[in-house]
Amino acid sequence: MWVGTVIGTLVATPKDQSLTGSKLLIVQPVSFTKHKECIPVVAVDAIGAGTGEQVLVVGGSSARYVVGNPEAAVDAAIIGIIDTMEVNRDLLKEP
Amino acid sequence: MWVGTVIGTLVATPKDQSLTGSKLLIVQPVSFTKHKECIPVVAVDAIGAGTGEQVLVVGGSSARYVVGNPEAAVDAAIIGIIDTMEVNRDLLKEP
Amino acid sequence: MWVGTVIGTLVATPKDQSLTGSKLLIVQPVSFTKHKECIPVVAVDAIGAGTGEQVLVVGGSSARYVVGNPEAAVDAAIIGIIDTMEVNRDLLKEP
Amino acid sequence: MWVGTVIGTLVATPKDQSLTGSKLLIVQPVSFTKHKECIPVVAVDAIGAGTGEQVLVVGGSSARYVVGNPEAAVDAAIIGIIDTMEVNRDLLKEP
Amino acid sequence: MWVGTVIGTLVATPKDQSLTGSKLLIVQPVSFTKHKECIPVVAVDAIGAGTGEQVLVVGGSSARYVVGNPEAAVDAAIIGIIDTMEVNRDLLKEP
Repeated sequence: MWVGTVIGTLVATPKDQSLTGSKLLIVQPVSFTKHKECIPVVAVDAIGAGTGEQVLVVGGSSARYVVGNPEAAVDAAIIGIIDTMEVNRDLLKEP
Repeated sequence: MWVGTVIGTLVATPKDQSLTGSKLLIVQPVSFTKHKECIPVVAVDAIGAGTGEQVLVVGGSSARYVVGNPEAAVDAAIIGIIDTMEVNRDLLKEP
Repeated sequence: MWVGTVIGTLVATPKDQSLTGSKLLIVQPVSFTKHKECIPVVAVDAIGAGTGEQVLVVGGSSARYVVGNPEAAVDAAIIGIIDTMEVNRDLLKEP
Repeated sequence: MWVGTVIGTLVATPKDQSLTGSKLLIVQPVSFTKHKECIPVVAVDAIGAGTGEQVLVVGGSSARYVVGNPEAAVDAAIIGIIDTMEVNRDLLKEP
Repeated sequence: MWVGTVIGTLVATPKDQSLTGSKLLIVQPVSFTKHKECIPVVAVDAIGAGTGEQVLVVGGSSARYVVGNPEAAVDAAIIGIIDTMEVNRDLLKEP
């Protein structure tokens, strides 16, 4: 899983039927440093998140179970909204 | 899932039989910034997309379900054509 | 699997029910060089690790078996605490 | 899937028995730009490719189905030889 | 799959029980160029490799079949020791 910030929404009218009714959010991974090397991911919102919120995202086949359909066209899902994080930034430096 | 731009097509005559009849498109991931670090992906088009369109792509084992064959030689599928996106680019900057 | 350093913790109150009771830790991959290109990962702690410790992390669908629920919303799990590592750094240089 | 160029071959005598009889090729992903950030991948050749040819490669669990053994020690397979590609390189530039 | 060099070993006493008895090696992916962008991976050794040897590594869910336990906490396994490689380095340059 990884921590991301919801940066936006998207609408896709022609889409796979397994996505009907799903809310899709665009999520930027948080790197905890100044570098940003990851591209934003589109995740199904299973929890009720909004733009600007920090969320927990699960990827891969596990995301299909989150939406309750093991054959869904889904590879990323928002599974939590983060209340607090406690990060020791000194540990980000490699000795 | 991720947002990409369809940049081209390809033809492969000798190919795995599970791909027979599938349209293959080359899709460049959209980074929302000036950096482009991802290489283009070849995805099965399950939705009727064309070059220049922005699409939603699913990767990994989920793509097999999109083509209706859980044993297909497929790891990426176009599952939507994007009508509109609303992205708060200020949130792309990490504080 | 990969080696990481536990750099922090997070709390997410609204979350997928399959995560209830799971301890979530933020883990920075160790690169063994000066470059740090990976973003931290959030992993379920299945072993009792703490901030500052070096751990072994498994990713992908295998992580679901670690938490004993093949349908859990999990794609990374801490599966070991590292006692010792012996690395020949000369082998990191490519001839 | 992705497009790659076959750059070489390898021989491994002690190997997992599920690989016995498989031809292994080293494939460099094609980026369509001047940057090359991906490391070469070793893929099972299911189609009869040779060094210098451009091929279509599938990754992840889907590759196991290509070799006809859902428990094979395989995570990448060559599933097509590319005849032609038509890429609009202007679309590679992000506005 | 990918080619890597075994650069070291690790010992983890508290660990997931599915790893009991497994030898864990630290493997650096070989890029065939001067750039090294990948972090080392920890793989279960299924073949009897040693530090300094070049090996073939499989990742993802396929690695679980290598260790003979489809529910093992494993996402990478050494499946071959490389005798010889023949790489046409001219093909590494993109035209």
